[in-house]
Amino acid sequence: MADIGALPLTLLSEQFAKLPGIGMKSAQRLAYHVMEMSDSEARALAQAILDAKKKVHTCAICCNFTENERCRFCSDPRRDQGTVCVVEAPRDIAAFERTKEYKGVYHVLHGLISPIDGIGPDKLRIKELLSRVNSGTVNEVIMATNPTVEGEATAMYICKLLKPFGVKVTRLAFGLPIGGMLEYADEITLYKALQNRSEI
Amino acid sequence: MADIGALPLTLLSEQFAKLPGIGMKSAQRLAYHVMEMSDSEARALAQAILDAKKKVHTCAICCNFTENERCRFCSDPRRDQGTVCVVEAPRDIAAFERTKEYKGVYHVLHGLISPIDGIGPDKLRIKELLSRVNSGTVNEVIMATNPTVEGEATAMYICKLLKPFGVKVTRLAFGLPIGGMLEYADEITLYKALQNRSEI
Repeated sequence: MADIGALPLTLLSEQFAKLPGIGMKSAQRLAYHVMEMSDSEARALAQAILDAKKKVHTCAICCNFTENERCRFCSDPRRDQGTVCVVEAPRDIAAFERTKEYKGVYHVLHGLISPIDGIGPDKLRIKELLSRVNSGTVNEVIMATNPTVEGEATAMYICKLLKPFGVKVTRLAFGLPIGGMLEYADEITLYKALQNRSEI
Repeated sequence: MADIGALPLTLLSEQFAKLPGIGMKSAQRLAYHVMEMSDSEARALAQAILDAKKKVHTCAICCNFTENERCRFCSDPRRDQGTVCVVEAPRDIAAFERTKEYKGVYHVLHGLISPIDGIGPDKLRIKELLSRVNSGTVNEVIMATNPTVEGEATAMYICKLLKPFGVKVTRLAFGLPIGGMLEYADEITLYKALQNRSEI
């Protein structure tokens, strides 16, 4: 990292550069920006980082991030607690909530099985999902991992583990995205759309 | 800001979104990333922000950022302390240092005169420059503000103030950038290049 005038500034830009999507140039710009902030603004930023780490933990039921014992979905009596949508990360929940149609709850795996990155099933929150299903309150598990190699493999692995419990396990539908054009669809998407065609 | 699961996380993403060049989506991504950091990594980031604000201040001579009384240029006997390059911001110094040719020192204005943004000359470090020139140690002042309306206006304003001291005041040359193509040069740059042509 280039020296940008003062050691604490260089160290700060190195810290910023560790964050995802922030290169060296942006990190230096952010470090200079901190110098332009008031003392209280800088303290607020630092405190927000510490607060998030200290106060936020995973929900005792679904492993989503929450500052309470149970997240707002697991503690909401209006949500269908018998339908569990299994996602890779907390950020995926926001996508489902945007549909405004999903009324069930979630289970966050905090990763996908990826042998190449040394992530085995034991690193994910699969045990918690199994004990949840085992408790008998779950009617359907929707596997909603991304349609990637790791996402598919993880969905299949968990599906196999769930079958003995007799619970209904479903997978998100794959096909043409709404508003998408046939001529720009990749062959796998088009193949899936053809395979999963429905009568009209 | 959208609720992203836990209040401290939402607050953290709001803090990140205040930083320059970071939108709401990136801010949420950064907040989630903080949750993946270890406690010590998060503390290191928060501490670096506080350290930069606490330990870094402006050089007593040139107003560049430094953690000492004088910056590394003003305290370096190998630099020509009689040649002062006046820049808008500390980041501009890095650009001059990259040339590896400039051996003088700097003066950081910390802004440009911009009536539309309510920034008058009194908000800049012009007084410090004048007292520096008044002390009689300066031979040449190089006005190195950007070639924008505000940069030009600031350079002209300071030049007028410096003239009574009898000090040599110069401005960076404007013309075609090296490696640039005539056909892509804008008309003002080309006009400047024509006006400032030199005999070969």
